[in-house]
Parts: sequence; C-alpha cells; structure tokens
Amino acid sequence: MKLSNLLLNTLKESPKEAKIISHQLMLRSSMIRQHTSGIYTWLPLGFKVLKNIENIIRRNQDEIGCNEMLMSTIQSSELWKKSARYTDYGKEMLRITDRHENELLYGPTNEEVITDLFSDYVNSYKALPKYLYHIQWKFRDEIRPRFGVMRGREFLMKDAYSFDLTEEGAFETYKIFFKSYLKTFLDLGLQPIPVKAATGAIGGDLSHEFQILASTGESEIAYDSKLIDSGLYKKSYEEITSMYSASDEMIDKSKFDVIVGRGIEVGHIFNFGTKYTKPLECYVLNKDGKRINPHMGSYGVGVSRLTAAIIEAFHDEKGIKWPINIAPFKINIISQSNSDLNEEIESIYNNLTSKYNNISLDDRDLSIGRKIKDSELIGIPWTLIIGNNYKEKGQVEVIRRSDGDKLFLSKQEIENFEFEQYTP
Amino acid sequence: MKLSNLLLNTLKESPKEAKIISHQLMLRSSMIRQHTSGIYTWLPLGFKVLKNIENIIRRNQDEIGCNEMLMSTIQSSELWKKSARYTDYGKEMLRITDRHENELLYGPTNEEVITDLFSDYVNSYKALPKYLYHIQWKFRDEIRPRFGVMRGREFLMKDAYSFDLTEEGAFETYKIFFKSYLKTFLDLGLQPIPVKAATGAIGGDLSHEFQILASTGESEIAYDSKLIDSGLYKKSYEEITSMYSASDEMIDKSKFDVIVGRGIEVGHIFNFGTKYTKPLECYVLNKDGKRINPHMGSYGVGVSRLTAAIIEAFHDEKGIKWPINIAPFKINIISQSNSDLNEEIESIYNNLTSKYNNISLDDRDLSIGRKIKDSELIGIPWTLIIGNNYKEKGQVEVIRRSDGDKLFLSKQEIENFEFEQYTP
Repeated sequence: MKLSNLLLNTLKESPKEAKIISHQLMLRSSMIRQHTSGIYTWLPLGFKVLKNIENIIRRNQDEIGCNEMLMSTIQSSELWKKSARYTDYGKEMLRITDRHENELLYGPTNEEVITDLFSDYVNSYKALPKYLYHIQWKFRDEIRPRFGVMRGREFLMKDAYSFDLTEEGAFETYKIFFKSYLKTFLDLGLQPIPVKAATGAIGGDLSHEFQILASTGESEIAYDSKLIDSGLYKKSYEEITSMYSASDEMIDKSKFDVIVGRGIEVGHIFNFGTKYTKPLECYVLNKDGKRINPHMGSYGVGVSRLTAAIIEAFHDEKGIKWPINIAPFKINIISQSNSDLNEEIESIYNNLTSKYNNISLDDRDLSIGRKIKDSELIGIPWTLIIGNNYKEKGQVEVIRRSDGDKLFLSKQEIENFEFEQYTP
Repeated sequence: MKLSNLLLNTLKESPKEAKIISHQLMLRSSMIRQHTSGIYTWLPLGFKVLKNIENIIRRNQDEIGCNEMLMSTIQSSELWKKSARYTDYGKEMLRITDRHENELLYGPTNEEVITDLFSDYVNSYKALPKYLYHIQWKFRDEIRPRFGVMRGREFLMKDAYSFDLTEEGAFETYKIFFKSYLKTFLDLGLQPIPVKAATGAIGGDLSHEFQILASTGESEIAYDSKLIDSGLYKKSYEEITSMYSASDEMIDKSKFDVIVGRGIEVGHIFNFGTKYTKPLECYVLNKDGKRINPHMGSYGVGVSRLTAAIIEAFHDEKGIKWPINIAPFKINIISQSNSDLNEEIESIYNNLTSKYNNISLDDRDLSIGRKIKDSELIGIPWTLIIGNNYKEKGQVEVIRRSDGDKLFLSKQEIENFEFEQYTP
C-alpha cells in the first residue's frame, strides 16, 4: 500500500492527555483517535493491527474446535434479571431505554445470552462438549476512562463459552482453553504468564488470568523462570500450574528463585459450573434421559486492549516495535520524493508485494529523514531505503526495527531475502 | 467442518412470527435467532454467510483504493447537534445517557464522525481524493421491527465516505463508487438495478439506490432489459444511467420495452457536496493556499440485510439456494451414520477440504433422507451422497442444489471435478 493513500498525520509531540506510552504512541502514529471519553475511532493503520491480532486469536479458537458466531451488542435486560446480575453490574453497565420503554443494555459480557440460546439448539449429551465464541464490541461505562484503548469504554473482546455434561468434562475443557491461550499469546509474539485469579462478577471457583510481560505493566507479577518457555503450551496443565506465579498483593515475598516483573492482563478464563444454566433453566438430557444443567466456562481475550499491551511490551524511545505477525506493514520502502529511481522502486515494491501481503511504499512528499522517523514511530519491522547508496553502488539499505541491525543488499538479494526468518 | 460440531437444529415448520420467506428460512436453518425485538444472534451457520458477503464487499472497496477503518458504535451527540440532524432523526435514533449524564447515541450512520476526524489528518488538496470505509453495526430504533434481519434494529452496514476538492471531482468519485457497486452485487451472484433515488435524511441532490431482483421483493421496479448484463459495470456511468429504471410511484406506466419486476434495496449512494463539511468546519487548503470545504459523498451497503435479500432472490419450496460464492459450505458430504464406508468418506472429505476451504461432512446421527432435506434447506450448492450406490457400484451421487441436476461420479472423478466451474 502506498502511504500517500493512508490517513496518516504523525505527531512529533505527545498529546497531553496521554499518560502511558502505548496511548502516546497510538495517537502519535495515527492508529486511533478519541471520539469522546473512552471511545475511539480505529484509523486505517490501527485497524490493520487490530485485524491482525483478531485473526491470530480466531485461528487459535478454530483450532480447538470452537465455533465462531456473533451475538448482538445490544441486549435485553430480561435475562440479566434472571441471573441476578442486572443490579450486580451497577453503573458500569450502560443502560438504555428504547422508544417503547423497553429496558436494554450494551452487553459487557455474554454468559446470559449464550446460555439462553444454547438450549434452543442442543438438548442431548451426544452434542457435548460444545464450544462457541464471538469477537464483538462490548461496553463498560468506566467512571474514569483513561490510558487510551487499554481501559476504554467501548472495547473489542473475544469471548468463548463452553458447555459440558459433567464437572469433570468442564475441567478437561478448561485445560484445553488454558493451553490454547498460552499458544495464542505466543503466536502473537508475547510472553504470557498464567496467574491464578479471583472470579469476580463472572463467578465460579476456578479462574486464571493471562498476564503479558511489559516493563511498564500495570501489575507486579512474580513467576517461576521456567514459565518463560516458547514450548510451554505443549506441557500438561498440571505441570504448568505447578510452577509459581502470582500478582500484586498475592505475591509471596519469601519465595526464592522467582522473577519479579510487571505485567498487563490480556486474558481471563473461568470455570463456573451451573451458575448460569440453573437460573436460566438450561438443560440437556444425559444417557439415562435425565435432565441435567450443563457445566460452563467462559474465556475472554481483550482484543483492542492487546494493541496497547503489545506496544507497552515492544517500544523504545523512537516508537513502536511490532512483532512481525502483527505489524500493520511488514516492510516499508522509502525513497526521496521526485526520485529518478522511481521505476526501480516500483519494481522492488511490486516484487515484494507479490511475495508478502503487507508491504508499504512511503511515496509522500517528505524528506528521507522524516520518512525514516515515521517508519520507526509506526514500528514497521523492516525499512528499505532506496537513495544515494542505491544510485552509487546499487545497494538498498535495510534496517531492522527490533535492534537497528543494518544490511546492504542488492536488488537481487532483496528479492531472495527471507525477511520473516532472518536472524543475524 | 463436521456438522455434529455446528449449532444446528433445523425446523420442519416455520415459526409463526416469520412473515417473509427469508425470515422463515433463516430461522428454520438455524442461521439466526431473535434475541429481542429486531435484534438477532448470528448462529455459526448464519455468521459464515455474513462473513462471506462482508469479504466480497471488502475486496471490492479495497479495489477502488478505499481504506478500511472502524468507527465506534456509540457516538457523542455533540457533532449531531452541529449538523442539525440530532432532532431530524427523531425516535429512530437510539439515545443513551451515560453515568455522567452525557448524551450519547448508537450511530445510525457516520457522516458527522468521519467529517470531524478527517480534518485532523488531511489538510491539503494534495491528499485528495480520499476514500474511507468501515463495516460496523448500526442501530435504528424502528417502531415495528419485522421481517427478521431485513428490517432489524441492530444491523451491519458497510458505509464509505469520499472527500474531493471540487464538485467535479466529487462527481467523478460518485461514478467510481456507482460502478464498483454494480460489480460488488454481480460478484455476490446478484442482479443489481440502479435506480435514481430521493436523498432523504442524508441530503444532497444526486443519489442512486441499488435494487436486486427478487420475485418476493418489497418494491415494484421497472427497468430497461439492457440493464440485465453481467458486464454492465464495464460500461460508462453515462451509458448505464441513460437506460430507464424506476421504482414504485416513480414508474412511468406509459414506457414501452421495460421489464416490470420486484426488487429489494440493498445499497444506496449519495453525493451531497459540503452539507457536512460546512457546519462541521472541515477545511483543506487548495493550490492557492485558500481554505476550502471538501465535497463529500457516502455509499452504503446493507450487509446483514443482504443475507435475507439473497435468500428472497434464491430459494424454492425446499429451502435456500446459495450462490456458490456466499454459501456457508460449498459441498456437503452425507452418509448413513454407522456406515462401513467411514474410511472412504473421511478420505473424500479430506481430499475436498485440501482443495476447497469450505466443505461440510454431515456426521450427525440422522437418516440419509433427513440429511438430504437439511442440505436442501440450508442451501449448500453441492450435496454428495455416499451410500448404497457407492457400496454397489463405487459411485458417489452428486446433486446440484440450483437445479437438482444429478451426476454419478467415482471417487477419482470427484477429486478432479471442478465444482465451482461446472455448468451442465
């Protein structure tokens, strides 16, 4: 894509209202724009990142046989009264009255809706277990929205729900999602630490949070160094959960051999049995023809929050450093405007575009220096400079964002270079 | 995908509340479920269709250089007061008060939001024209929601917005979107008829609706037979709009040589100049450094409405007949349960899955007869029956949904058969 076609207006200075680095960098790089308190527009650049994250999450959910569907954003209050959460949620729930004076709300989560619909379509143990998910906007009317999309009011979440016949089955399902979550965050290029958690408004007695490590993280976390392993998800649930991890006030300061760092919560899973199937009268028949309340779990990932959390984990003083799987563009080609190398540049751009699906060409009427700064700010993993070096020696200057590593490659070498695999 | 894993509970009888055929078939085939009046859950089967339609629309918008982004569902009332539409919209606008007594609303359209943000990122004629779109849920608090997702309250829409320096430029842009819309609907397998339209609440003086032909359509339309041409979008705007078309009370009954049929509105485009850029004080600098209000257009497609409209256009007494590009599954393999052919079936399923991305295997514990009926109801373009014929003669019975055409193919022939291209 040519950057002249993008809605891009990078800022040198950080807007005053942004207190944390991810919020500052998202505003400075034209990823998001605040529409009103806690509500954001995703500009083309931010939208690309959001979609990339969403697709990695989707692929991982599909892999464990979780079925995608879509529940509405607006819900009726009726089911929430049955589950007794209508009052529990207090002022964080955005309550709405329609033209016929019906009580509606903007869904903050979907346990009630999924439980209610489930019994219409499944009535036998034969169809269990069943896993369903959707990726949909939620609303939480925070008293003080802040930190950009890290704690916005309208936010995108992937929430999955599982139905099992028995408590044992539900625990097996919980383990499947637990491991799938580790793999999801690793696929995103992150280092996830699972931490046993309180269950809060969702309920139940078994719950884990997934924190990702970031020096600017909101929570203190302490964890066994063996949790830092890219093959972690292949180990058994029991093995993983036997390793120490804890956050904030739960940290046991007397523990030896643990690393203390900071983390950001990006996922949360719950196993809550029949908490919703009982009051909402959801039943399936077991082998003996007896009506049973299925056992449920729910599994959330903050998709919009992740864009910010990943920036907290990957940035430096120049800007964002996107992991290559998530980057809005993998490679950014920059050159002098009105360059006499235009034909060469187009040809390199077209070659790379035929090999990768996500290449940008900075054809804006700006200096090379400004373009390099923007490329660093936006966090594109590879920058290719086609300038004087190319004219004199036929060399493209190739800069890797993650560590500033520089290479000089010919046009031919560029075509064969494995940008996604390269390690120096 | 194995159908035992899908949330599927097909109904023989049509639910009483459904008055039109698409609503009946969507409920009967487990595509959607009503959550509350005019608000629907998209079950896995319906969600697949919705995504397929969305992706064809997206590809066509991308092709004309329109940039995808995402505006929030909840908007502040502030901009709507500036444009003077806050009162115009009346009770159809879902108005919301948050915990701090701020007036919010669920966006029914986005002219105000896009105009407001545009001036933050573009300030020079050099960056024009600029085309932006998003695919987002909207809300319209209909007094009597009905006809399922054809006239729901929460609905998915693709809305694009264009910015040009001059009136002439805006008209050229209008023509580009006009032709792109024809191509989009043709790509969806539909027959679009563009009809000159009133501009209503959006404003401006140039507008077209796109109707698709369906015998059960909501409007009467009359049109030149030359408009029924799959290469229509390659003709010039002037040539296309010189052909006669009109709807309902605008039809001139004295016209000869026109076809009278019925249609469903699925798209609407508007050219409205500076109607929003003036009150919202959106400016760009022209070549002479003078501040100019850019000229705008907006371009909508009803994505969720299209699922129903397409069913109205393609169905028979047995069920839905999806065009192959949109179908939730392209090919459905069915067999006796507990069949001794299970290995053969799995092998055919795996072979087709490696060739196409959208194959279903009906492994549910039901009779072949019931599975065939479900395949017809759901509208899968091709059904493969692996039963007695396969056992006795090694033949798979292949049925095409569009016309009931039957073929008998060997396993080898199935592997080489071009399901997407085949015409008898």
